[in-house]
Amino acid sequence: MISRCDVPRPPERSFASDNTAGVSPEVIDALNAVAAGSAMPYGSDDLTALAYQAFDDLFETNVATLFCWGGTGANVVGLASVLEPWQAVLSPDSAHIVVDECGAPARFTGATITPVPTSDGRLRIADLDPFLQWAHSEHHPQPRVVSVSQATETGQLYSVDQLGDIAEFAHSHNMLVHVDGARIANAIAATGASVNEMLVATGVDLMTFGLTKNGAMYGEAVVFIDPSLASNARFVRKQAGQLASKGRYIAAQALALLQDDLWLTNAAHANALATTLAEQVSSISGIDIHGRPEVNAVFAQLPRSVIDDLQRWSFFWDWDTNENLVRWMTSFETTEADVERFVAGLRHFMSIQR
Amino acid sequence: MISRCDVPRPPERSFASDNTAGVSPEVIDALNAVAAGSAMPYGSDDLTALAYQAFDDLFETNVATLFCWGGTGANVVGLASVLEPWQAVLSPDSAHIVVDECGAPARFTGATITPVPTSDGRLRIADLDPFLQWAHSEHHPQPRVVSVSQATETGQLYSVDQLGDIAEFAHSHNMLVHVDGARIANAIAATGASVNEMLVATGVDLMTFGLTKNGAMYGEAVVFIDPSLASNARFVRKQAGQLASKGRYIAAQALALLQDDLWLTNAAHANALATTLAEQVSSISGIDIHGRPEVNAVFAQLPRSVIDDLQRWSFFWDWDTNENLVRWMTSFETTEADVERFVAGLRHFMSIQR
Amino acid sequence: MISRCDVPRPPERSFASDNTAGVSPEVIDALNAVAAGSAMPYGSDDLTALAYQAFDDLFETNVATLFCWGGTGANVVGLASVLEPWQAVLSPDSAHIVVDECGAPARFTGATITPVPTSDGRLRIADLDPFLQWAHSEHHPQPRVVSVSQATETGQLYSVDQLGDIAEFAHSHNMLVHVDGARIANAIAATGASVNEMLVATGVDLMTFGLTKNGAMYGEAVVFIDPSLASNARFVRKQAGQLASKGRYIAAQALALLQDDLWLTNAAHANALATTLAEQVSSISGIDIHGRPEVNAVFAQLPRSVIDDLQRWSFFWDWDTNENLVRWMTSFETTEADVERFVAGLRHFMSIQR
Amino acid sequence: MISRCDVPRPPERSFASDNTAGVSPEVIDALNAVAAGSAMPYGSDDLTALAYQAFDDLFETNVATLFCWGGTGANVVGLASVLEPWQAVLSPDSAHIVVDECGAPARFTGATITPVPTSDGRLRIADLDPFLQWAHSEHHPQPRVVSVSQATETGQLYSVDQLGDIAEFAHSHNMLVHVDGARIANAIAATGASVNEMLVATGVDLMTFGLTKNGAMYGEAVVFIDPSLASNARFVRKQAGQLASKGRYIAAQALALLQDDLWLTNAAHANALATTLAEQVSSISGIDIHGRPEVNAVFAQLPRSVIDDLQRWSFFWDWDTNENLVRWMTSFETTEADVERFVAGLRHFMSIQR
Repeated sequence: MISRCDVPRPPERSFASDNTAGVSPEVIDALNAVAAGSAMPYGSDDLTALAYQAFDDLFETNVATLFCWGGTGANVVGLASVLEPWQAVLSPDSAHIVVDECGAPARFTGATITPVPTSDGRLRIADLDPFLQWAHSEHHPQPRVVSVSQATETGQLYSVDQLGDIAEFAHSHNMLVHVDGARIANAIAATGASVNEMLVATGVDLMTFGLTKNGAMYGEAVVFIDPSLASNARFVRKQAGQLASKGRYIAAQALALLQDDLWLTNAAHANALATTLAEQVSSISGIDIHGRPEVNAVFAQLPRSVIDDLQRWSFFWDWDTNENLVRWMTSFETTEADVERFVAGLRHFMSIQR
Repeated sequence: MISRCDVPRPPERSFASDNTAGVSPEVIDALNAVAAGSAMPYGSDDLTALAYQAFDDLFETNVATLFCWGGTGANVVGLASVLEPWQAVLSPDSAHIVVDECGAPARFTGATITPVPTSDGRLRIADLDPFLQWAHSEHHPQPRVVSVSQATETGQLYSVDQLGDIAEFAHSHNMLVHVDGARIANAIAATGASVNEMLVATGVDLMTFGLTKNGAMYGEAVVFIDPSLASNARFVRKQAGQLASKGRYIAAQALALLQDDLWLTNAAHANALATTLAEQVSSISGIDIHGRPEVNAVFAQLPRSVIDDLQRWSFFWDWDTNENLVRWMTSFETTEADVERFVAGLRHFMSIQR
Repeated sequence: MISRCDVPRPPERSFASDNTAGVSPEVIDALNAVAAGSAMPYGSDDLTALAYQAFDDLFETNVATLFCWGGTGANVVGLASVLEPWQAVLSPDSAHIVVDECGAPARFTGATITPVPTSDGRLRIADLDPFLQWAHSEHHPQPRVVSVSQATETGQLYSVDQLGDIAEFAHSHNMLVHVDGARIANAIAATGASVNEMLVATGVDLMTFGLTKNGAMYGEAVVFIDPSLASNARFVRKQAGQLASKGRYIAAQALALLQDDLWLTNAAHANALATTLAEQVSSISGIDIHGRPEVNAVFAQLPRSVIDDLQRWSFFWDWDTNENLVRWMTSFETTEADVERFVAGLRHFMSIQR
Repeated sequence: MISRCDVPRPPERSFASDNTAGVSPEVIDALNAVAAGSAMPYGSDDLTALAYQAFDDLFETNVATLFCWGGTGANVVGLASVLEPWQAVLSPDSAHIVVDECGAPARFTGATITPVPTSDGRLRIADLDPFLQWAHSEHHPQPRVVSVSQATETGQLYSVDQLGDIAEFAHSHNMLVHVDGARIANAIAATGASVNEMLVATGVDLMTFGLTKNGAMYGEAVVFIDPSLASNARFVRKQAGQLASKGRYIAAQALALLQDDLWLTNAAHANALATTLAEQVSSISGIDIHGRPEVNAVFAQLPRSVIDDLQRWSFFWDWDTNENLVRWMTSFETTEADVERFVAGLRHFMSIQR
């Protein structure tokens, strides 16, 4: 007989999100190294200049990079730099800018953020087609930006070709392409494409390049791959409350992550453990894994009572309460042991389910 | 052989929209009667007071009424009076506030205008259900208003029961109900319900009460059926640029339309001619009428080349170019002769189609 | 002994504001002439095209004109068409856009409306100088527009040379010049300059051209004297809720006012009666007229108790309660008899002052 | 003869601003201590709860505290939580929210930020009086918040009594009091008043409590001293892009600064060195110190050519180029040796001035 006392020990690190993780050791080392002493504020310091150069190197072209505090802020700064208030952003209806930013991009830009229904969370050209009828009529918001998340909120990837198709379509209709790359590291690590292949050669115009979910303490980069789009971005960033006064401390983190491809090592680690988790869980009867994990997220359906028990044991979020769908995420910090314990917990609570 | 010289004469009045119509004779008479002389500006005049009283009488309860310039402005003033920027409006994806106001409500309120997919243009409670998961989490816009058009942009009606169901659901989830009544006259005339039955007893909280499409030269009313919601609305209206300086001239028009139920007579006339038009067209082979007209709009599918010929002959708009779907609208000013000529034109261009 | 029964009859027309006036007879005639029948909506009609042509003729150059509902809306549409949210408008601290529009331009544009202290209500270049230090630093709003009212809210005029100086200074610092011309007719009538001399040759870039205070029922024009600034203005106008659906009715009014220089005749009449009023009042001991009226406003200081009595007798507004300063305005509709009665009232209430 | 080789060594730490300083050692230690491991994101972690409790203790009352990324963001979140867009903030024309935030509060709130002229940078009740005439009229923005900086941007202090007077006046006119406390630590350290005496007993309603200028790497706190004002603030913060995902790292810094009154020790150190600097400089002929430093800023007038030389040697900012006025700031990190070197440099460049 299985009693409550047999409950396995929960994992040391949570599977709730990649932002429940701490700071990558190399990142905190870098912060320690520059903690004391004077430097020019607001990004006029030497480290920021080095970090911006490192982004040019990474993209293998001259981009315009601006550090911001967080992901919502970076999306806002990027979009607000290229949008007029009477224009529209077309974005999958599951996008972070649609669902998860409390309306920040809409409030700050005044523009219309149009959720586009998709078949599986990934935007296709045919999904955009109906909105082309809005063009040129003053009665409708004017489509100006197509925004996609790479990886998507639901853990999927666009291939290089898919991104290229979207960009070609967008450009042919006077639209720009924005990528919300809160998890771009996971996407690059998973596909093996280079940054230039994925984000420059495809025709992406601007993006949020995520750092925090991949080992930074804080800080994200807005990268204008077409640097001509950035001509007024520093005013936008300041007005959006996204200009760090002690800017060197974001730069130090970015440099640490880009050094020796730490950003890819961290992301590949997270991706690999999500695959491990999914594989081990798929053998547990009664839990339905949604697809093979493409990056560092596992989506699963399981009985409500088990979800409730598990969340009390080691918290994670519901993704869709109507569907009993939950999300488990791995990070650079997740260990094999964490996965083993979590799977043991799953087996346990499934076996005693009420 | 049919030659171009056989082209019938186009109707004197266009079927493009009910806002291509002129001014109802009683309305222009009312304007003439008060054209000269002093009156207090900004709605502090006697006529405005009388007109606001007339709305109380019409609704059979004490409402708070504010005149605005036009329909987009009235929607903006109503919604902005009850919304915080971090809240959301749930509205059918075909709604005027979503599609046809160039993003005005979103820009002015800062709030999220969420297009809700529906099966037929009419919102049902089940359509709203997924968005309830947003409540109480700071990551999501907070659902606060359900907004429906009565009649809808696609010429449909909500029954009194359907509106009541929506309001009951909304109120049980801490939401308000807003009605975009640009064509409320057509809806009331079509259903035979009283204003009180349709808009007060059902639980509607605030609305735009349309005047312009039904015979006014300009001017719409925001009616706060729950007058406590209007406590700051006059500041909102001024800041929205919707406060008329010579306010008496909107009041005079509203009084003329409410006098002796002219507003209902005008709307019933428009509705009846739409029915006539649909009936006569339905006998023309090759033209597919979408449903029986519930108010003053007829939607039809017909061959592209015929649409092109017809638009040159007597202009109307495409509704969906991908579907070859067009809209024909009647107004208080449309005559039986206009319908006859238009149908004759349809027959003609169908018969010579390329 | 003077008793209350000796109170003279108040004037038939109020001196409260030029927007307490009615509609110029020629304007209401023009509305009657086009009241019935179909026309394309949203300014796509023939009358609007004619009216826009009439503005080209008036300005003696190709301008871009857009009709709006009212003065606040027209200021918003003009400014929002040329401003980014991180930019600033420099404007006298008494300007309508600063004080009298409930913050409408700031809310809609997101930009900073900076009130500039002036010595007498008229902006001079030296007043602008301190704000040039803001340029190029992301910490400060970037000065982009200088906005002045012609005539000013306090009834003053800029000479052609003064406007030219402001424009030259503005352009040399990458700024545009906006004129709030709610009373441009009074200014043109008073100076005798042509529209071209006052507003084109001086270098003004865009303006609100007022119609309502000068005899229209409603409607104002935004005139982009530099038409290249108007490339997106129609989207701005729609999003600002300033696009009239039955647009022909504003056009008809504008055409009536521009026909045979009615706009100048109306304004000159108002100006002349303000001068008459000021002259007659200046002989009343105890009332201090502020300056010779340059247009159609008379500012006067008089005892508080007399102000109170007068306002009950024939309403007008306090201008500054701390200063016992009031404003009396004349309009196209004011008559000599109105002035005589008002002066008689002034004499009466001064004589019995408490 | 004095040659260029005699130029003294510049100070190791800049006097440009208190945000050119690094991170207080205790703060970086605290970050190291919690760098690794899982924690709930978005402020749902244990450290954040502890830190919020520490603010309750500091204020000696139950306040509502919310961490934000930076000072502009914290001002925006505080003000946006209590303002409607048709309301106004009255603030000295030198305030950070007026001059130094690129219009962020205006853009985000939609409200009017009204710069109030003052005699010396400190707001007095008489300065506010003219704006009371705006109340209750829909034509004017409605005064709702009085915002003052403590210390001011120009290095001055409000006494407890002065703050109390402002709050009493504000409350008697239905206004709230907001304090921009980017340098509240310097103010508290300088006056010797307790936080409760300065900010609770006086009647302040909400404030930004600065951390970054006083030794943190990043992060500021919005403190709603009246916690009822915070009911929706978490939605505002998220929509403003000011919610940190790894929230524990701001909490750790705040706890380190509040521990053993480190925040006051740091601020007192900066204040003392500013006094030392001012005293030593005042003996140099040709440099005019503006007032005795009340906190950690020294304002000085000196010849333009000397300013230019000095800035190349050890950078600081011009405060007013028209006045040859510059600002030198000390921080927790400034040393006696830094002051000595800086004064030596001043003497040197004054002696060789061109």
